[in-house]
Amino acid sequence: MQPGMPTSPTQAPRRQPSLSCATLEPTFEVEATDENGQRLVTRIAGEHPLTLYVDRREVVTLMTLGRAPEALAIGYLRNQRLVRSIEEIASVQVDWEVNAVAITTRSGIDDIERRMSHRTVTTGCGQGTVFGDLMAEIDTIRLRDDVRLHQSGLAALLEAVRQHETVYKSAGAVHGCALATHERDHCSLLAFVEDVGRHNAVDAIAGQMWLNDWDGSDKIFYTTGRLTSEMVIKAAQMQIPFLVSRSGLTQMGYETAARVGMTMIGRAINRHFLLFTGSHRFVPSPVVAP
Amino acid sequence: MQPGMPTSPTQAPRRQPSLSCATLEPTFEVEATDENGQRLVTRIAGEHPLTLYVDRREVVTLMTLGRAPEALAIGYLRNQRLVRSIEEIASVQVDWEVNAVAITTRSGIDDIERRMSHRTVTTGCGQGTVFGDLMAEIDTIRLRDDVRLHQSGLAALLEAVRQHETVYKSAGAVHGCALATHERDHCSLLAFVEDVGRHNAVDAIAGQMWLNDWDGSDKIFYTTGRLTSEMVIKAAQMQIPFLVSRSGLTQMGYETAARVGMTMIGRAINRHFLLFTGSHRFVPSPVVAP
Repeated sequence: MQPGMPTSPTQAPRRQPSLSCATLEPTFEVEATDENGQRLVTRIAGEHPLTLYVDRREVVTLMTLGRAPEALAIGYLRNQRLVRSIEEIASVQVDWEVNAVAITTRSGIDDIERRMSHRTVTTGCGQGTVFGDLMAEIDTIRLRDDVRLHQSGLAALLEAVRQHETVYKSAGAVHGCALATHERDHCSLLAFVEDVGRHNAVDAIAGQMWLNDWDGSDKIFYTTGRLTSEMVIKAAQMQIPFLVSRSGLTQMGYETAARVGMTMIGRAINRHFLLFTGSHRFVPSPVVAP
Repeated sequence: MQPGMPTSPTQAPRRQPSLSCATLEPTFEVEATDENGQRLVTRIAGEHPLTLYVDRREVVTLMTLGRAPEALAIGYLRNQRLVRSIEEIASVQVDWEVNAVAITTRSGIDDIERRMSHRTVTTGCGQGTVFGDLMAEIDTIRLRDDVRLHQSGLAALLEAVRQHETVYKSAGAVHGCALATHERDHCSLLAFVEDVGRHNAVDAIAGQMWLNDWDGSDKIFYTTGRLTSEMVIKAAQMQIPFLVSRSGLTQMGYETAARVGMTMIGRAINRHFLLFTGSHRFVPSPVVAP
């Protein structure tokens, strides 16, 4: 992952945090016995504890595949609302010898004790801890209404994701998330992260968005995981109007997407999908069976 | 769910908590549009916040399907090691009007602040918060070695589970967990819980085990979810020697199962499976292809 460049040469360059680059091998081989009594070697996904320390204060331990630990740490702090801007972060240093990441802020985090005082254990895999009442924030979010997703662009997204799922294909037991740009029939993945917990994958994408100064307001967020309230809230916080999943959705995911006016598509595999909410941004090109 | 009877008439009856019985409808209908532009009605899984108060102190908010909220609350406290015995709990009262469950203990929880001070956000879906270092406990656990799982009994388990997945079949987006007894070719489900988070389903089973005074030491624990370290730890804490999943496993799930000597089987669908660890308790009856 490359730290992003400023969006315009006339702007002052953004201050980027100093980052380690501590990606781990994602899969390992183990032996197993199948139903016919045959010994075989199969690949399994890695899973490593990573304890986040912010200015030497222990915040949380995440269990992760370790593919993008620096972006994960940044995205976790972003999505938990513990930092408000990438510029608050001076350094993110991962050390797998001690399974820790040291995040140093430029001027400390005000009020960190209070912000961490409310825990919500959410439905999703992995990073289930949310501090504070994110639902209250939903009503303040306005997603862009002047952007469109074409059905052919959705098909291009699903094909691009299919080609990227390397860990899932070899070992299973991971979730993938992607951030994509799209225009009519075309779609390209800006970021694709797999992790043992899908909320880690979401947070790593959020971290990459900050590091690269990517604007979410016309992008697609794709996840292999279920569309729960927390997934919708996180996408909305990143200003992303399009949320696509291979899986199904829950009632609160549906209600939250309807409330914030997000274009939410579930059960998207190959050319099949179900469009649940925000149909005003979707341009269908239905293939009617003969 | 029936409160359990004492295991022997010569024992004093166990004190059972007073329980509400606040099961929710699991699925809801919503409209969607498919890839052919057709409007249709589809069912989605419920998802409700449930805030646990222990002796009026707010502990956590879980997002749940709401099928077994009392058992979920009890199992959460059990698996987080906040209570040590069902007899410590006097009352569990769920009120969906305010999305809360009030748990009253008989004599308070010592040291609750310290016990809740370490948060680990684990890989799994849903209830990812673990207080304290559960891994340290693993080395003190000894699982029974005089029990066996027959391959034909495993097949019977998978068939029984297949017949029970009601919410998953109609709405998807849920995980299921089961506790089963077995003897040679036979297997029967003592409990089967589906929830939007698989860790909720695990905890609800743990709660039912306490309420019914079920001994885990010869049982099978089945989950549709992945076999992560936390799943193995929870099964081990319940003294369960057999852990079976439809899904794959992670590296720490594998290492933890090997460390505690659990018989762990993944990718178990129909008559297929992979036996990863603890093969000494497994009695194969391989069907060798002609």
